Amino acid sequence: MMKTTCHVHLKHHSYPIYIGSGLLKDPFWVKAHIPHSKVMIVTNPSIASWYLPLIQSQFQNSQCDVTLLPEGEAFKNLNILYLIFDELLTHGHHRDTCIIALGGGVIGDMAGFAASCYQRGVPFIQIPTSLLAQVDSSVGGKTGVNHPLGKNMIGAFYQPQAVVIDTETLQTLPTREFNAGLAEVIKYGLMFDKEFFEWLEKNMDKILAKDPEALQTTLHRCCEIKAEIVSKDEREEGLRALLNFGHTFGHAFEGAQGYGEWLHGEAVAAGMMVALYLSMDCSESLSLEDIQRVERLLKKCQLPTQAPQSVSIKDCLAWMRRDKKIKDDKMRFILLHSLGEAFIHETVPMEKVMMALEQSGLSKEC
Amino acid sequence: MMKTTCHVHLKHHSYPIYIGSGLLKDPFWVKAHIPHSKVMIVTNPSIASWYLPLIQSQFQNSQCDVTLLPEGEAFKNLNILYLIFDELLTHGHHRDTCIIALGGGVIGDMAGFAASCYQRGVPFIQIPTSLLAQVDSSVGGKTGVNHPLGKNMIGAFYQPQAVVIDTETLQTLPTREFNAGLAEVIKYGLMFDKEFFEWLEKNMDKILAKDPEALQTTLHRCCEIKAEIVSKDEREEGLRALLNFGHTFGHAFEGAQGYGEWLHGEAVAAGMMVALYLSMDCSESLSLEDIQRVERLLKKCQLPTQAPQSVSIKDCLAWMRRDKKIKDDKMRFILLHSLGEAFIHETVPMEKVMMALEQSGLSKEC
Repeated sequence: MMKTTCHVHLKHHSYPIYIGSGLLKDPFWVKAHIPHSKVMIVTNPSIASWYLPLIQSQFQNSQCDVTLLPEGEAFKNLNILYLIFDELLTHGHHRDTCIIALGGGVIGDMAGFAASCYQRGVPFIQIPTSLLAQVDSSVGGKTGVNHPLGKNMIGAFYQPQAVVIDTETLQTLPTREFNAGLAEVIKYGLMFDKEFFEWLEKNMDKILAKDPEALQTTLHRCCEIKAEIVSKDEREEGLRALLNFGHTFGHAFEGAQGYGEWLHGEAVAAGMMVALYLSMDCSESLSLEDIQRVERLLKKCQLPTQAPQSVSIKDCLAWMRRDKKIKDDKMRFILLHSLGEAFIHETVPMEKVMMALEQSGLSKEC
Repeated sequence: MMKTTCHVHLKHHSYPIYIGSGLLKDPFWVKAHIPHSKVMIVTNPSIASWYLPLIQSQFQNSQCDVTLLPEGEAFKNLNILYLIFDELLTHGHHRDTCIIALGGGVIGDMAGFAASCYQRGVPFIQIPTSLLAQVDSSVGGKTGVNHPLGKNMIGAFYQPQAVVIDTETLQTLPTREFNAGLAEVIKYGLMFDKEFFEWLEKNMDKILAKDPEALQTTLHRCCEIKAEIVSKDEREEGLRALLNFGHTFGHAFEGAQGYGEWLHGEAVAAGMMVALYLSMDCSESLSLEDIQRVERLLKKCQLPTQAPQSVSIKDCLAWMRRDKKIKDDKMRFILLHSLGEAFIHETVPMEKVMMALEQSGLSKEC
């Protein structure tokens, strides 16, 4: 069994990320981090049909309850979060429970947020089953739900006890979702590691074919980068903000279209393209050829490289203004100097933002 | 102007508690702790009619918005919490906002919880206007809302930037609410400081007459005790649990009757009486005479000293089982060895609990 481990080192809490194929079949990886006798698994019906019996069988001697949440970003809200509290209270879970998030990014964000505020905090474990959750959202303790007026507007920084990534779960993941996760994978190369970006260019066919070795290398490198960044800046006071490359635009595309239209990774792919145009305009060292390399790689993964046609620049700007990364009403963006080298620009002029949005296909009127 | 200050010292965050008469009239106390240019005041209509203009006038040069919440414990839930997020987002508040909790315990708990999870955490200031909030709930960072199946089941430990206690606000507080706050005041004496308990016995007439000097002494001593305990045990892993004396019973009375029937302090008063009977039974060093002294003091404050007649022992036990202070299904209670000296009993036998409930007036059947 192929297996590697990364560690997130925080001041008051460190935890491991286990990555390997078949980890869920071995009770050790999950159970070693369950401190108490009660467990609440939070998942959704499709994931449950694949993996729930496997996890449940490891807790035959404990009280093991399940909360099934409806699927999709459209349900990532406070009303649906309430279902988790209902189940916990109905089944008599106290502070000595442990919540297991079994699923993709939506499940991880909601189960983690529920863990952070149930009885003012109970432990939880991430078992991410989508590529996006495995390389990004399950690591680092960002949890939360959406509000009709903005994505992830209500949440907490709350770290899991462990992250258990079984790469075999990617075999059952729908292709569109797998591809969406690749947007975040490509982001790591773009932002922090040109060598990894070039490795991705060479190995994308293998990754798309879900070759176990290529997947292991990909997941390990992404988690390693994410763990290092979170260890240095847990609360996104500096460095960690770089991980939001393309996200200000991506969130606006998601919000303006209505959550659920595009997958998060798809919106991030299109958002990264806008951020690249803006980078070229602002930093002058990024070339059009660099942007075209990224575009080719995104297209290979069948990801959108243009902003959604149904959204106008005006809508998009309105959504961006609500974004939490705006400080004192200045437009702040994460940009690239060159492939593998990111920086934060605190005061990007509005006309450059509008120009980049036009370049990526948005119209001024709708 | 009479003014004293206590400090809560935590590992990563320390903050002052200012206590004095007329503090709200001086812009310094609140404004010194507002880090940014936007402010959201969370309050309710009655408190607003008394104090809102005073606070608003200090922010004439800033964006200062207001969320009005309906009054009472019955509205301390996730749906009403949502109103705060709506107002924050509608008025374009980002991470650079500051929330001001202006009101009693319900307002403080909800505004604090909203601050803890709005955009994963923004700063907030407590301006408690009820006695209960001033001596207890505004200090120490316990925030949260109720669930139909349990009190404070959803929340966070989240500390304010400062607590500003203007004792003049007690002059406008309804007598019933003022008296309810005295239950928590008496609790501090009972648990930690026999001398203070005896001072309360001697000075209760002055306190009930809202004599400014007596109020200042009372508030300072309560906040001093609370600050010391929170500084030693922020997350209630040991010592801080002692502050819950009478609360397991009190919460059950509140829940079983329906929130809003009794005020929290009233339920705590009756709950402390049950805890005293249980203490006498379990520790054998507390005398009936001690209990009668407490009973006399509570009665002087017009507080209930018997469990509510509408609740049966069975109902009460069902509510207690859901209480978060139960570990591995053992009944854990905070008890008194003697006046001023508390301890935690991890395994109180159920029949003793039932006997204490009977002594305090509950019937086995309803």
